[in-house]
Order: sequence, then structure tokens, then C-alpha cells
Amino acid sequence: MKPINILEKFTHINSHWHPHQVATVDDMQVILARIKGEFVWHKHEEEDELFQVIQGTLYMQFRDRTEVVHEGELIVVPKGVEHCPSTKDGEDVLLLLFEQKSTSHTGQIQHELTKTDYPKI
Amino acid sequence: MKPINILEKFTHINSHWHPHQVATVDDMQVILARIKGEFVWHKHEEEDELFQVIQGTLYMQFRDRTEVVHEGELIVVPKGVEHCPSTKDGEDVLLLLFEQKSTSHTGQIQHELTKTDYPKI
Repeated sequence: MKPINILEKFTHINSHWHPHQVATVDDMQVILARIKGEFVWHKHEEEDELFQVIQGTLYMQFRDRTEVVHEGELIVVPKGVEHCPSTKDGEDVLLLLFEQKSTSHTGQIQHELTKTDYPKI
Repeated sequence: MKPINILEKFTHINSHWHPHQVATVDDMQVILARIKGEFVWHKHEEEDELFQVIQGTLYMQFRDRTEVVHEGELIVVPKGVEHCPSTKDGEDVLLLLFEQKSTSHTGQIQHELTKTDYPKI
């Protein structure tokens, strides 16, 4: 029950595409991720996923278009929808995500970027 | 699946203590609330509740202390814990909350501030 400073938490995250858990809300979790470049195309069959941009610009690719999500904006990717988060021009982008504790960040895909341990910070 | 600009959404919220829903994530909802002054003491027996401060300073009162939550910070109030959100010096504070769709913002209390309709914006 202590305030969590989001930007301060990011000083503990040095790697890209590795979610870190900062809080839980019932069966959901709040995770932070530092991202750069392109992730992996995937979907979550059973879970929606919320992305809030804390710093930088997120390019959320869908199969038919790309949505540009600026700092101070959020986007919800509904269950079953293929997506691939990415950034441009080597920008380091800071994201806050809300999702089920059971959600894997690469969805149905096993990839070299897949992390199963989300450090608690 | 469109980006949601949080501050833009607040231009549609003119009253205090009236949650507006901007998104859902599975059984959870993302709500925005403009607050000023003191709310009502309450608790949620079954649900955690997350408060993220978008603008201003939130004074989250608990029975044994007050936590000061600044812009860019968040706090999770666990189920069963009595709390009373408040602001100081007449400041208009902008909050993003993440909670169950079924959560009532005044918990077990029926109060003149209790709203059962959360407009979708």
C-alpha cells in the first residue's frame, strides 16, 4: 500500500522486452517493459491486453494497419487479435501493461524473446 | 483498437467524483475520475483497486495514515482496506483507476456521491 513511482521503477529495468511486475490487482498484473525495435507477432486467445505509453512512441502493428500510440495514450488489444509492438529510429520506449497474471507476453508463440519469469520490482 | 488519449478524455469530464469508463480489459475496466476535496470512507470487500495519478496530488487516507501519491505514481488499495481519497487546497486531481467492472466506487456505502452509471467516453 505504498505509492509506486513508475519512472523510478524503470531505473531497475535495463533489458528490452523483459516484463517486470510492479503490482497486482486481483487476478491481473501491472507490468512495465522497456522496448526497442520490433517484437514478435503473436496473439492472446483468451486475454485482452492494455498498453499505456509512459515515454516515447509505440507503433502497434496489426495485420491490416499500424496504430501510433503516443506518450499519455493507451490502447487495448482485444483477445484473438494478432499484433506486434514496435518502436522506430532506435527509440527506447517505456510501457505499462495491464493484463492477466497468466498472460504470456509472446502469446501462443515460443520465441527467443519469450520470458517466463517476470521479476517483481 | 484505437489509441485513447487520457488528457483529451478528461475534457469530457466536468463533474467531480463521477467515474467515466474509457476501456475494458477482460472483466476489468479502466475509469477516469476528476476529484476535488474529500470523498467518502469505504472499502471493497472483494476487489483490489488501482489508482494512477494523471495530474495533481492524491492524498489517499487510510485509518492509520495517509499516503501522498504524486503525478506519475500509482497505488493499489487491497480488498477489505478502508480508504478515503482526497485532495488538498482545492486542487482538481485527475485519476485513472483500474478495477473490476462490478466495483462500486463507494464500496459498501450508499452515499449522495454514489454513482451507478459510469458514462462511456
